[in-house]
Amino acid sequence: MFEQKPLIAIPLNDENIYKNIDIAKEKGADIIELRIDQFNKINIEEIINILKYIKAKDLKSISTIRSEKEGGKFIQNRYEIFKEIVKYTDIIDIELTSFDIREKVIKLAKENGKYALISYHDFEKTPDNIQQIINQAYNLGADIIKFAFKANSFEDVAKILCITNQNKDKNIVAIAMGDYGKISRLAGFVFGSLITYSFLGEAFASGQIQIDKLIEDMKFYNLR
Amino acid sequence: MFEQKPLIAIPLNDENIYKNIDIAKEKGADIIELRIDQFNKINIEEIINILKYIKAKDLKSISTIRSEKEGGKFIQNRYEIFKEIVKYTDIIDIELTSFDIREKVIKLAKENGKYALISYHDFEKTPDNIQQIINQAYNLGADIIKFAFKANSFEDVAKILCITNQNKDKNIVAIAMGDYGKISRLAGFVFGSLITYSFLGEAFASGQIQIDKLIEDMKFYNLR
Repeated sequence: MFEQKPLIAIPLNDENIYKNIDIAKEKGADIIELRIDQFNKINIEEIINILKYIKAKDLKSISTIRSEKEGGKFIQNRYEIFKEIVKYTDIIDIELTSFDIREKVIKLAKENGKYALISYHDFEKTPDNIQQIINQAYNLGADIIKFAFKANSFEDVAKILCITNQNKDKNIVAIAMGDYGKISRLAGFVFGSLITYSFLGEAFASGQIQIDKLIEDMKFYNLR
Repeated sequence: MFEQKPLIAIPLNDENIYKNIDIAKEKGADIIELRIDQFNKINIEEIINILKYIKAKDLKSISTIRSEKEGGKFIQNRYEIFKEIVKYTDIIDIELTSFDIREKVIKLAKENGKYALISYHDFEKTPDNIQQIINQAYNLGADIIKFAFKANSFEDVAKILCITNQNKDKNIVAIAMGDYGKISRLAGFVFGSLITYSFLGEAFASGQIQIDKLIEDMKFYNLR
């Protein structure tokens, strides 16, 4: 799955989900991230139907249920939901800071032959201990390590991208959030970041680039 | 001159030079690089008139007379030309490999209160000894160090940009040439590169971005 080609992921909630999956496919996305924590209604059967629809469209899926701390709505039984849907998805996203369930979720993914993506967010700043975060996630068994930091300067952006490049032996998704970090959504691939998160209508996170512009620029700058 | 704002330079030869200076100014360029080695006719008085015109337009000027080895036409009396025009320009570009005249040219620039830009090109590859090249130029007294390497992979591009970021205490202009390197023309600023070379009609070097698109994207990605 992680050959050289950079991948575009579209995070979606359950509003107009089937139509949005169609649009994402048509526009050239590779992955749908189901932001289950942003769903208006959580119904396991329906989530499975959506995951099957994604697969039928020849797209990959990331199933994400963010904790409240990392920007999700409060959902009590996150592990149980993962357990019900794991067979139907490709990647399970679990936060490094979900101390209560992270080991269980990683084990669940691996037992089912799926990828465990361990993610870490800092919406305020770019921390100094990025390498430590990478190592922690790696030692927990992450197949993919995703970190998203708020960049408060271009120096922050450079720091995030250059440390990504120093960890090319691992599967990394690197994001510099905010206005300073916008360029990381396009240029991250150059430094080894595997996936960029884009949007169709409305951005899920600050600094994301709408998919048409993203693909246009990826072609123009010979990135895809 | 080298505050945070990234600068756009337009290299020009003597064809339609006055008109092209007008266009460059109008489109938002900051610097005109006179590629004197690409002039059809070398006439000192005329070069001085052009430099005065650039100054009157409130643009900065780089005066460049590349050696044959670094992509110029053969010009015998490079030092003498620099000597005649130094008072009228802002920056003198001299190659690190111009062993015969580089010290003299740097001295000339400094004696006249101008910036010495020491440049280094490799049109084939991205070398391993980039830091050594930077140090050599710095020790010679470069006010600005410019290097342009052909990138044969994204790994090369990342190498060029991350080493630039490690040398933020110096004034660096970093370029990754070729298709892989195109993104460096836009994203280089993030890593501390001071100037990007662009074009109006026809590119001077592989991977350059036409000025309208460059400025559009610099704005979109919050780089300017």
